[in-house]
Amino acid sequence: MEYKVTSPAVLREPLVVPDKLLMGPGPSNAPQRVLDAMSKPILGHLHPETLKIMDDIKEGVRYLFQTTNAATFCLSASGHGGMEATLCNLLEDGDVVLIGHTGHWGDRSADMATRYGADVRTVKSKVGQSLSLEEIRTALLQHKPSVLFLTQGDSSTGVLQGLEGVGALCHANNCLLIVDTVASLGGTPFFMDRWEVDAVYTGSQKVLGAPPGITPMSFSHRAVERFKSRNTKVKVYYWDMALVGDYWGCFGRPRIYHHTISATLLYGLREAIALACEESLPTLIARHQDCAQRLYRGLEAAGFELYANSKERLATVTTIKVPQGVDWLKVAQYAMKTYMVEISGGLGPTAGQVFRIGLMGQNATTERVDRVLQVFTEAVKSVQPNVQIKGKI
Amino acid sequence: MEYKVTSPAVLREPLVVPDKLLMGPGPSNAPQRVLDAMSKPILGHLHPETLKIMDDIKEGVRYLFQTTNAATFCLSASGHGGMEATLCNLLEDGDVVLIGHTGHWGDRSADMATRYGADVRTVKSKVGQSLSLEEIRTALLQHKPSVLFLTQGDSSTGVLQGLEGVGALCHANNCLLIVDTVASLGGTPFFMDRWEVDAVYTGSQKVLGAPPGITPMSFSHRAVERFKSRNTKVKVYYWDMALVGDYWGCFGRPRIYHHTISATLLYGLREAIALACEESLPTLIARHQDCAQRLYRGLEAAGFELYANSKERLATVTTIKVPQGVDWLKVAQYAMKTYMVEISGGLGPTAGQVFRIGLMGQNATTERVDRVLQVFTEAVKSVQPNVQIKGKI
Repeated sequence: MEYKVTSPAVLREPLVVPDKLLMGPGPSNAPQRVLDAMSKPILGHLHPETLKIMDDIKEGVRYLFQTTNAATFCLSASGHGGMEATLCNLLEDGDVVLIGHTGHWGDRSADMATRYGADVRTVKSKVGQSLSLEEIRTALLQHKPSVLFLTQGDSSTGVLQGLEGVGALCHANNCLLIVDTVASLGGTPFFMDRWEVDAVYTGSQKVLGAPPGITPMSFSHRAVERFKSRNTKVKVYYWDMALVGDYWGCFGRPRIYHHTISATLLYGLREAIALACEESLPTLIARHQDCAQRLYRGLEAAGFELYANSKERLATVTTIKVPQGVDWLKVAQYAMKTYMVEISGGLGPTAGQVFRIGLMGQNATTERVDRVLQVFTEAVKSVQPNVQIKGKI
Repeated sequence: MEYKVTSPAVLREPLVVPDKLLMGPGPSNAPQRVLDAMSKPILGHLHPETLKIMDDIKEGVRYLFQTTNAATFCLSASGHGGMEATLCNLLEDGDVVLIGHTGHWGDRSADMATRYGADVRTVKSKVGQSLSLEEIRTALLQHKPSVLFLTQGDSSTGVLQGLEGVGALCHANNCLLIVDTVASLGGTPFFMDRWEVDAVYTGSQKVLGAPPGITPMSFSHRAVERFKSRNTKVKVYYWDMALVGDYWGCFGRPRIYHHTISATLLYGLREAIALACEESLPTLIARHQDCAQRLYRGLEAAGFELYANSKERLATVTTIKVPQGVDWLKVAQYAMKTYMVEISGGLGPTAGQVFRIGLMGQNATTERVDRVLQVFTEAVKSVQPNVQIKGKI
């Protein structure tokens, strides 16, 4: 018998996909218009209709980042790919990179930058807080990095990092500024050009409600200049901004084949961005902020304590301290099993310490805030009836 | 006004996706069952249902590659990601890699390996031919590489590279064997374990008829051992086989979060693999080979000359010499404009020299072979009525 490995029986069973309410830190539920778009026929990676969809997306991404950057495109990878690509394109062996650490994404970016051969320095914020402009200034003067990496919204801690003034500070010190907006974009203001940010990427599957697997990003003219003056080639063909940018028609040169883009993901992302544009950024952001305030009030009224400092909270992902004696995993399991509602635990430095509730995209509504509050408080009570949360619940 | 970049008008227009017959070198048309699956609701990246779908896919991929390798999983990237990951995981600075060059993918892999810091050597086949075992043996003895890279089916030339005996030859010379099966898997036999292949990846959007953006791959135990004995970390977190493998539950350790996988692409790929398993590998391959033979006969009867040597032709992608005086681009444009049928030109070393017709997945049927023959010959005749193709047409 030639074919020794036999066809698996599991693939004769039907595909099972339950419909859950995704109130964790992402992905969020995708709107029906986005889901419907993804069953449209596949198109080739250089067909004019595909290039038109890419152009539409490019325009939409510029709006979302509030930038006019030519080098605006998407990577065919998850948000982690965005982190890889910003670091990989802007760093060479031995370059000093300063990581502003407000949670797990500081650790992850430091890991990546180390692999790319950079000299990695870190400035850590206090627990549950962001870095002040003064702390950043001191660290810049101390380490003299060529790149500063910040996470606008660290989904592990729920901390929102202020960005006003940071770009100018960096440029006064011959440093470029990378910002991760995976969990924050659309839930909090972000102005790439005004804030002089040099490289940014976001998550498709958070506020936008598109599927994961495709990552919008943008590089400033300063970043492009830095790229052009590299002494060595970018270490990864797949992340090379010149090649990806040419495929996306960013630099006025002929469109070239770089890789086979996923038509399916383009359709979903295009429709998700169109929905965000229809709603408009100010309205989208206000909706997320209003819902977050309602969630904070509800949680505090029930006696829960929030992890992130009140002035520095990320609207999209709320971190809640796990009350003493409560098994967070059982709470999450109760919510999922009883109501098909996702509530998450911590990640990295907050693992075991916090719950994480996400309000993103179509899940940022009054109704869903009330729903998750009801499910969450019931779940905590159910797994630990005698819990003392400042005497409440 | 705070928001200086305004919302683009193009995104107020509806998404336009025509239904084309994709008879180029890929992507191919996806079966309706695959398209339907992709509009199912998004699931989280660590939900048990997601992990179950990943497990199903893993089993299916082992069947497709004919392997029992533990380290079998998918990358969240296009096929180029598979090429990156095999090279990146198995090479360190200064390692000698030998590229067996039968077309464009030899150039691309050499580019990537150079970026990873390897010492790249190349052995080139004759035009339209593959490398003989003897040529490979001579090159192995000359260059003493730690890795040999071969493309089973080079889609730019339509050449099929024989693999029997190569793995054993490599292992006798302390070398690992990487094989690209992006354009070949399912259209021609491939036996990872029997042929002692150490690293392989394939395209989701070719014979399988799944969407692009997710790439099945597998590493042998020898490759895993080589990985474990590295002196340096893999340069790219996103491609690190230990981390991706742990996410996919390959090594018996707890499943960990590596990145947010695209649930949508998992659904599509799972259903595409299920269809291939239902049909069975021998039947799937025979169907592609029969259709290719029918296409060759039809093309030769019409007077066209094939580019690849008759004993070394890839069933899935057929390369046809552009007859003198014919503008290939006009032919492709005529086919698309008149019939919405995709026929492609060359790529890399064959650019301008050949047409490429793909027969992949649900497009490998007698009916579609006859359709593409009719459209292609009509298109050539139409753009160049006086064409002399061995006196025929």
